[in-house]
Amino acid sequence: MTIELGTATTASQTKVLFLGSGELGKEVCLELMRLGVHVVACDRYANAPAMQVAHSSHVFPMMDAEKLRAVIEQEKPDFVVPEIEAIATETLLALEKEGHHVIPTARAARLTMDREGIRRLAAEELGLPTSPYRFADTEEEFRAAVEEIGMPCVVKPIMSSSGRGQSTIKSEDDVAKAWTIAREGARGGAGKVIVEGFIEFEYEITLLTVRHLDAEGKPVTSFCPPVGHRQVDGDYHESWQPQPMSEKALAEAQRIAKAVTDDVGGRGLFGVELFISGDQVWFSEVSPRPHDTGMVTMITQDLSEFALHARAILGLPIPNIHLHGPGASYVVLGHGKSDQPRFQVDPKGLAQPDTALRLFGKPTVDGERRLGVGLARGASIDEAKAKARAVAESVTVILE
Amino acid sequence: MTIELGTATTASQTKVLFLGSGELGKEVCLELMRLGVHVVACDRYANAPAMQVAHSSHVFPMMDAEKLRAVIEQEKPDFVVPEIEAIATETLLALEKEGHHVIPTARAARLTMDREGIRRLAAEELGLPTSPYRFADTEEEFRAAVEEIGMPCVVKPIMSSSGRGQSTIKSEDDVAKAWTIAREGARGGAGKVIVEGFIEFEYEITLLTVRHLDAEGKPVTSFCPPVGHRQVDGDYHESWQPQPMSEKALAEAQRIAKAVTDDVGGRGLFGVELFISGDQVWFSEVSPRPHDTGMVTMITQDLSEFALHARAILGLPIPNIHLHGPGASYVVLGHGKSDQPRFQVDPKGLAQPDTALRLFGKPTVDGERRLGVGLARGASIDEAKAKARAVAESVTVILE
Repeated sequence: MTIELGTATTASQTKVLFLGSGELGKEVCLELMRLGVHVVACDRYANAPAMQVAHSSHVFPMMDAEKLRAVIEQEKPDFVVPEIEAIATETLLALEKEGHHVIPTARAARLTMDREGIRRLAAEELGLPTSPYRFADTEEEFRAAVEEIGMPCVVKPIMSSSGRGQSTIKSEDDVAKAWTIAREGARGGAGKVIVEGFIEFEYEITLLTVRHLDAEGKPVTSFCPPVGHRQVDGDYHESWQPQPMSEKALAEAQRIAKAVTDDVGGRGLFGVELFISGDQVWFSEVSPRPHDTGMVTMITQDLSEFALHARAILGLPIPNIHLHGPGASYVVLGHGKSDQPRFQVDPKGLAQPDTALRLFGKPTVDGERRLGVGLARGASIDEAKAKARAVAESVTVILE
Repeated sequence: MTIELGTATTASQTKVLFLGSGELGKEVCLELMRLGVHVVACDRYANAPAMQVAHSSHVFPMMDAEKLRAVIEQEKPDFVVPEIEAIATETLLALEKEGHHVIPTARAARLTMDREGIRRLAAEELGLPTSPYRFADTEEEFRAAVEEIGMPCVVKPIMSSSGRGQSTIKSEDDVAKAWTIAREGARGGAGKVIVEGFIEFEYEITLLTVRHLDAEGKPVTSFCPPVGHRQVDGDYHESWQPQPMSEKALAEAQRIAKAVTDDVGGRGLFGVELFISGDQVWFSEVSPRPHDTGMVTMITQDLSEFALHARAILGLPIPNIHLHGPGASYVVLGHGKSDQPRFQVDPKGLAQPDTALRLFGKPTVDGERRLGVGLARGASIDEAKAKARAVAESVTVILE
């Protein structure tokens, strides 16, 4: 068996097309270009991070089914790589049937586009432990769901990125507000919400899980050491690796991750989000692509989650994943409005040993936006966390 | 003190312009883009490796002084980064005087454009140990130089890349041939040659040396662990790191590297090539930029030579350089003619633990051309070398 790779910009090129061109796609794009791959980046706005690295780009909304089909039919990529959730996934399903290779699969993109598909798959079809949940389409259904699940509970739109539209109901006073927040935070401003019962978990992890081929071309699954993270309003602010956990909990986490990713199928890296308490593990969500909390792997792992995704996409083997030591990431956020963000970097942050910085190159900010990330390794997780935070805090974002 | 960084594609952008866009520039370009820098790549042909990653590009011969000036005046980059030797360096000197920032300095580009400037600086001005040498402009001078230096001796054009035009004179029979080879291999097909006496060295190293700023903005020098390498006809075929050497020899190598790079000045990574025998060290050459033998650092070091160059260019500190373990690189060569190179990759190469591959994306081959590199870490240098070679040999280059 051999893997055939062509040369970008020539007739032999191996072409990968990204749907979504954020900072995660940018790093996958870099890793693919290191293997001579031709990369086309798509997103709803010009000069998105991955577009700046890619060979060429297309600007259109990823939910625009007609445009999506036209671009893919024009570009004829060897691999279509969704980088965000909100995509015209029915079109992806159709294109896959017509012979296009979607990473990991069009069904994965369909199932993970909203919180309902994957939750029902995990809990109802695969029988994996999750929090108790109900879905609601109307305010009446919503109130009934809250009653059934009980308080406290968490409310999220089924379609939203990161923490948008998410809130916690602690008492009757929060119910009406939670409905409004969820509707307003939802992609498109409407749609179903999920009401989730509270799990008394100790910590959350992202288990980066790669489905890839071995040297004989057989599909195998590899796991990165678990990534711990801290969210603020559902949005990742810092992560670290490896998250200490019991052997039993790790085995259970891997069992759950493998069950979900095996069912979804295809090749690629997945971010499987799990809640942990002692030896108990609950499935929460899965991204069929690199995960923002996994940015820490840019400093901890030999092959980052992005390099792993690139290898898996192309069918190259991943014999081992080497952890260089405990490490952490801490996000750089911008708050304000600007179409020319600037950064004043106090060199003291990067003057700490074993640290690095990424600035994503996002051309505009309007509100809160993640613009970069501080990275560090340390003798301990605590040391790495402190250093990564110091790197991030050494960056002053100037928006004017 | 703070370092100001803008956002690529916007009015605030920090802009770096590359003169030369090969595989080494491509990796520097990637590292700069990870810091949100706007990158413009220039080379004599379209779709050169770094151009594929850069935001935009210009195609013109780097020796074209007029075009070089026009492009730099048009682009107004914050930093001009020579990536090759053959550049209109007089223009760079003039542009620097007019306020442009050349990395490391325009004088460095001038001195290293040919083998004469830097050799005379090292041996005659700085009094550093080098092989005995003579320069010759005519065949008559050349014959006199060979007589003075004695046989065996090495003959090289003073202007050529890698091993081009290089040969060894062992007996009277080789003299005429060496002259012809040197003239034919020279850039532009003429010019001076250098006749170098043989040094009985045990091994050669590249000492990657970074001149950069510390947290207080003071210039400091850092060294990577020494890189050992094997050349075939003056062209690098494999390298490894760290090259074992005596403490005394390492100290002397660092002394020589510091003397040369301090004299040249500026910020950036240098590849200082040295010959070693026991504790004795001779200066050979220096590149004021990442060195091809240093590609091994993509798998051995936390910050590769490319990441180090990027940090030094921008004025960011480099507190330490972490070696993850012994490693090696082995080049992938193509021989033939094609404008659509393809690669058949046997996955067994990358199925070895701790290995990686780079394919540069060079769009054409005519003769012999370096198209990629296999990378590996191992428990020992020998193991790493065997693995890197196996990765390189797992790639079959198809030129048709």
